[in-house]
Amino acid sequence: MGHGGGGALSSELVEHVFLPSFRDEALARLGDSAVLDLAGLGGDRLAFTTDSFVVRPLFFPGGSIGELAVNGTVNDLAMSGARPLFLSTAFILEEGTDVTVVGAVAERVGAAAERAGVRVVTGDTKVVESGHGDGIYVNTAGIGLVPDGVDVRPDRAAPGDVVIVSGEIGVHGIAIMSVREGLEFGTALESDCQPLNGLVDAILGVTRDVHVLRDPTRGGVAASLNEIARAARVGIELDERALPIPDVVANACAFLGLDPLQVANEGKLLAFVPPAHAEAVLAAMRAHPAGLGASVIGRCVADHPGLVAATTGFGASRVVDLPLGEQLPRIC
Amino acid sequence: MGHGGGGALSSELVEHVFLPSFRDEALARLGDSAVLDLAGLGGDRLAFTTDSFVVRPLFFPGGSIGELAVNGTVNDLAMSGARPLFLSTAFILEEGTDVTVVGAVAERVGAAAERAGVRVVTGDTKVVESGHGDGIYVNTAGIGLVPDGVDVRPDRAAPGDVVIVSGEIGVHGIAIMSVREGLEFGTALESDCQPLNGLVDAILGVTRDVHVLRDPTRGGVAASLNEIARAARVGIELDERALPIPDVVANACAFLGLDPLQVANEGKLLAFVPPAHAEAVLAAMRAHPAGLGASVIGRCVADHPGLVAATTGFGASRVVDLPLGEQLPRIC
Repeated sequence: MGHGGGGALSSELVEHVFLPSFRDEALARLGDSAVLDLAGLGGDRLAFTTDSFVVRPLFFPGGSIGELAVNGTVNDLAMSGARPLFLSTAFILEEGTDVTVVGAVAERVGAAAERAGVRVVTGDTKVVESGHGDGIYVNTAGIGLVPDGVDVRPDRAAPGDVVIVSGEIGVHGIAIMSVREGLEFGTALESDCQPLNGLVDAILGVTRDVHVLRDPTRGGVAASLNEIARAARVGIELDERALPIPDVVANACAFLGLDPLQVANEGKLLAFVPPAHAEAVLAAMRAHPAGLGASVIGRCVADHPGLVAATTGFGASRVVDLPLGEQLPRIC
Repeated sequence: MGHGGGGALSSELVEHVFLPSFRDEALARLGDSAVLDLAGLGGDRLAFTTDSFVVRPLFFPGGSIGELAVNGTVNDLAMSGARPLFLSTAFILEEGTDVTVVGAVAERVGAAAERAGVRVVTGDTKVVESGHGDGIYVNTAGIGLVPDGVDVRPDRAAPGDVVIVSGEIGVHGIAIMSVREGLEFGTALESDCQPLNGLVDAILGVTRDVHVLRDPTRGGVAASLNEIARAARVGIELDERALPIPDVVANACAFLGLDPLQVANEGKLLAFVPPAHAEAVLAAMRAHPAGLGASVIGRCVADHPGLVAATTGFGASRVVDLPLGEQLPRIC
């Protein structure tokens, strides 16, 4: 408990665990806030977002709560068309958590921030009693700048837009489930957790006239598409045969009674692009390491506004619902 | 658990509990990030800060976790000389927490934000299983703009600076302890939790040449002064008789074996001001509702750099140490 009290033990934790992992001069100043100069960074519009991460277990194949916390917030900024710049991190530690585990997570945070090209500039640590936490919870907030001329938001989806997904879906949720529940699905599955800001740069390099970007995390592709359909009052038609679902995910979902469309992703995005630009955007995505498996999965229509429909392999049509609650608790 | 899954139950929580409390158009757009126009707001330098709040109990005399979460982050921004503008809020809810309690906290957040003149523009909710949280944890991050010419930071303290405190100290920590432990100290004590950005405006209205501002929260006045003495490599001399410690706090501290200098405050600030401006700054503080009890408590010296010394009522001198660990767990 002493490490959260704002005294000498807190200072030690900051100096020996967090500062070496994050290596940032604004953070090292240890003011109440980081002060950051925006002049010359381009753009007057700020993007601002936050997410808490409570994933269990803390480390999993392909990542940890540290990578999730950085990439989750970096990707939320990128989905607004922003260039991510600065992150805050706030740790809630459960009393008794091994300080080497805290250090390992902090190192993952630092490495992920470096990979994504963002700076961790401010932070906080609290400690709660044993039985009131679960090892480590991490919150990140992030700031980015939206380049002039970019206007990407859910309610800009328009009939005719081509819906592109950047790669295979359902991987993160199934990877977490397999390690947590000790399930074996034949092939080892790693989370797809990765930063998407580079891929968004590649897309916006083709055209700034991209209508919507969204990373289908909790609730999966189904939740993201339903939110977009409702926000823009458009219909969305999916071609079920075109969905890139790896066999291991399809098999695990069949076994667990899950819909792959509702399983979380942590390194994929959906792009809604006017048809004139769709081919060029798809090519640019496929040329980027985070978009190698990009494909067209559907289209925006004027019919059935607010509704997502999928055409099955047999030519029938079904409604893709917003999942009700939690299929897979604490996967991010 | 379903309310944290990113599906229909999550949407309901956002639409019926959070949006009505925060009433913000950027938040209501429900994008992955809030997009905020900075043009014309004045200043190129951004202040950015974060804090998690784990106070127990959630509601206490003079406030709640909601006011703490807003004012804590507003005050951290103000202590950098910034004008606070935007907040994020992220809730970690423990499964089984009454939704009316969540709603009541959200309302307190909304009201506190309105009082402080800041907008809640983006947010997140996660749910953890019973036994892995404690009702509600709240994280806020905040963004402000630093006016041109303002440069307030711990390492600017300089020998000669007059140290001013804005009012009575030790009140928040003792108020929380009294309600949590069911202690009676003769008088009902309310937390001093309040926003300090208005008071900082009043101070900077006198002169922009203020060296340090700090709100002595966790670890109290002792921790803040030690951090400043170390950051600026100056000595600080306190006049113990000048410390504004209310009788009820002094008595409670004597009873509990605490040093009032180490008890948390949530609505007070320390200002380090060059002597030429000290009198005018003190007068401006006393003319502001949040600074009515402002007084001079000490001075910066070139002697004993990094050390805080207090002259006692008997003329002796003692070292005021950085508290080691946690005196009063979870008071914010």
